[in-house]
Amino acid sequence: MIATPIKHYLQFKDFTADEYAYLLQRAAFIKAKFKAFEKHHPFADPDRTLAMIFEKASTRTRVSFEAGMYQLGGSVVHLTTGDSQLGRAEPIEDSAKVISRMVDIVMIRTFEQTKIERFAAHSRVPVINGLTNEFHPCQILADLFTLVEHRPATSGNPLDAIKGKVVAWVGDGNNMANTWLQAAELLGFTVHVSTPSGYEVNAELAGISNPACYKVFADPREACRGADLVTTDVWTSMGFEAENEVRRQAFAQWCVDEAMMAVAQPDAIFMHCLPAHRGEEVAAEVIDGPQSVVWDEAENRMHAQKALMEYLLLGRLA
Amino acid sequence: MIATPIKHYLQFKDFTADEYAYLLQRAAFIKAKFKAFEKHHPFADPDRTLAMIFEKASTRTRVSFEAGMYQLGGSVVHLTTGDSQLGRAEPIEDSAKVISRMVDIVMIRTFEQTKIERFAAHSRVPVINGLTNEFHPCQILADLFTLVEHRPATSGNPLDAIKGKVVAWVGDGNNMANTWLQAAELLGFTVHVSTPSGYEVNAELAGISNPACYKVFADPREACRGADLVTTDVWTSMGFEAENEVRRQAFAQWCVDEAMMAVAQPDAIFMHCLPAHRGEEVAAEVIDGPQSVVWDEAENRMHAQKALMEYLLLGRLA
Amino acid sequence: MIATPIKHYLQFKDFTADEYAYLLQRAAFIKAKFKAFEKHHPFADPDRTLAMIFEKASTRTRVSFEAGMYQLGGSVVHLTTGDSQLGRAEPIEDSAKVISRMVDIVMIRTFEQTKIERFAAHSRVPVINGLTNEFHPCQILADLFTLVEHRPATSGNPLDAIKGKVVAWVGDGNNMANTWLQAAELLGFTVHVSTPSGYEVNAELAGISNPACYKVFADPREACRGADLVTTDVWTSMGFEAENEVRRQAFAQWCVDEAMMAVAQPDAIFMHCLPAHRGEEVAAEVIDGPQSVVWDEAENRMHAQKALMEYLLLGRLA
Repeated sequence: MIATPIKHYLQFKDFTADEYAYLLQRAAFIKAKFKAFEKHHPFADPDRTLAMIFEKASTRTRVSFEAGMYQLGGSVVHLTTGDSQLGRAEPIEDSAKVISRMVDIVMIRTFEQTKIERFAAHSRVPVINGLTNEFHPCQILADLFTLVEHRPATSGNPLDAIKGKVVAWVGDGNNMANTWLQAAELLGFTVHVSTPSGYEVNAELAGISNPACYKVFADPREACRGADLVTTDVWTSMGFEAENEVRRQAFAQWCVDEAMMAVAQPDAIFMHCLPAHRGEEVAAEVIDGPQSVVWDEAENRMHAQKALMEYLLLGRLA
Repeated sequence: MIATPIKHYLQFKDFTADEYAYLLQRAAFIKAKFKAFEKHHPFADPDRTLAMIFEKASTRTRVSFEAGMYQLGGSVVHLTTGDSQLGRAEPIEDSAKVISRMVDIVMIRTFEQTKIERFAAHSRVPVINGLTNEFHPCQILADLFTLVEHRPATSGNPLDAIKGKVVAWVGDGNNMANTWLQAAELLGFTVHVSTPSGYEVNAELAGISNPACYKVFADPREACRGADLVTTDVWTSMGFEAENEVRRQAFAQWCVDEAMMAVAQPDAIFMHCLPAHRGEEVAAEVIDGPQSVVWDEAENRMHAQKALMEYLLLGRLA
Repeated sequence: MIATPIKHYLQFKDFTADEYAYLLQRAAFIKAKFKAFEKHHPFADPDRTLAMIFEKASTRTRVSFEAGMYQLGGSVVHLTTGDSQLGRAEPIEDSAKVISRMVDIVMIRTFEQTKIERFAAHSRVPVINGLTNEFHPCQILADLFTLVEHRPATSGNPLDAIKGKVVAWVGDGNNMANTWLQAAELLGFTVHVSTPSGYEVNAELAGISNPACYKVFADPREACRGADLVTTDVWTSMGFEAENEVRRQAFAQWCVDEAMMAVAQPDAIFMHCLPAHRGEEVAAEVIDGPQSVVWDEAENRMHAQKALMEYLLLGRLA
């Protein structure tokens, strides 16, 4: 249903820096349309339909993709896998062949990255990673858009607003952290990573070849020193709830608090992909304080993903 | 996404009598459009999206809001909270901030009225009470619209069709009964309430200051005497199933039957918000008889709610 | 909301041969529009909304109806019955009366055929059988469309592509098999049925009066001999999982393999309504081989159902 070759968005590094420059500009354009109540319907004629497949529950990803698709004039089919996981009732490859005959684009939130890769390999239409155990590229795209929005470069080039910056990642070395590393290597910034022992980021999994793109700190406050952006995530991500108590003890020192923000750049901003647990991974004073941009960040998921879907289906429009 | 101040619809008394006069006229206009197959798309440009959040299952509320939104040219995101209640995964306030960044209006069906009030306090967009343990304003709006439709005033003013009327409420002193009291006080009619002992209506909760707006009757037939409208609800509302057997015994005499209808006004009508249990709260002869308007009442949920959503988002249009 | 008399589609024999000639041509027209990215929005003005009621889970039926409705410019309300079956919370007749006041067309996937018939009898709008224990007419409509597409008649009349053909049904004498019999009798072709003992097709249930429309074979290979189309289904359909192991043994010889395809017509095609279990009811070499048209067949569900919905709501358009 679209021109070949089909583009997928399964990992952050699936796109080039140049493509990110376009996407970040386009997201700003699309957001401005939304804020001005101006109709922007690239998916209305011909009709475009998104299938969303959720193996993990979600509110934020659900609403941002679904409302975003409507704002583009498209439609959405929302599928949950219920008790049976993707690939249980029929081979993933068969599901991919059938579903991609009926819709124009597919978003999948699942567990193993291999599942989404197998689906994409047999899909006739673009597939988007809406979160896997390994990666969360849509969130990082939204975070970078939010960074550019709050700290734009004088050049107007969004990549200039990102290049050379320091991003402090405090907490779990999870799918978010892995994705930050891919972004840092591709776009030329540095991630300061501080995780408890045993919860390290997985640079090998992320396929990092330039080790200079990130630095590991035992002390989370040292990771925050001089950072332009401080960010974290819940101690226990979805699917790891059984480890809850063990993690609570291991992560006790990895709470982003005012002391950490105090050693970051004076104009540093704080991000969190939400939901947040105040008093655990972040102090209320930080997430509810003046440096926090978490509500813009949440809204920007929607606009960044609109730019992404538009690009995957229609290519560059401006 | 809309002009300030934001209007919510959390209780019946959130609107003035004048606003109800507008809404009842507008609902009639919108219904006429629908019946004539005439497109009425105030929510198509710019796009308007409704988020529906259900903590209690529902078919009627679901279909009426969702189909209604489509008929207005808008879109819908349907969220169920599944195992986790609203406020469990993240504070309600955070959910309100995030969701209200992405959609234009929110409908919530939940348990405690306080939940919907906390949500509304942090929402950037209008919030509608789609049923709480305490109130059900959308249903009473639809019921009043149905009353005006079936027994219009010669003046053409819908408020004249309501003023001075007697509404008999037979059965549980629940969210419907509480809301009828608010409507009676605001619009100048009288509710005859008859409930089993221990299931009284809660006038204090409803904030009633004029005790003349309702009269309590021990005998349900006395409550029906001279009534223009007789109405009831299931003996056991959603969320109270554990009390089923106790309630069945307590409510045995509170079945609206032909004897009750016989003492009401000759042109009295019967309403029920459905689903109905024939032989329990209502006799089959009544709900399936000539005085019953329950199917119109059900359909009118949709049209009344269309008028409501249009008003909350766009103000008065005529 | 539509012109009387209301047409439903509850069994294959609800339509005449002439109506199928129209539907098959119309499905081809609608599919061509889709493939050419041409907008075809008969349900956009006035708005048309489909309610889908699922008592059994489904991906294929879900996506094909929902995406199909969007492609026609319409909207969809997707209802699942969860724990409570249709008719549990309220009489089916009441549900039918209420839902058919709010939407324009209803699709139901349920267990007993009687449920859908009771619903239809009280519905103001057309009702479509999206699968019952007894029948699956939408699938057969799609299969016939796929047969005509792959083996068209020189006359251009789709019925000529079907008349006189031999369809081999191998496996369970289930809802699909029952529906094939209705189609054969109505459209003048022959079904070769081979099922294990105890799993026979139900010609009486299907209301077959011309016994020449099907032949029963003990040996599945004999059923395939000379067939133009070979088709099968999973050994254990939804709702019969408890019989899984018994069925596995009973059906062991009813696997469509290359030997069966070898005795069919040289240009015979293979169909399967999916999901498929390779190595059980069909060999991988067959379903993934050159005679298999299962992916077109799956996509054609969507186009055939679009033609069906358009016809039920708007009648003949060309």
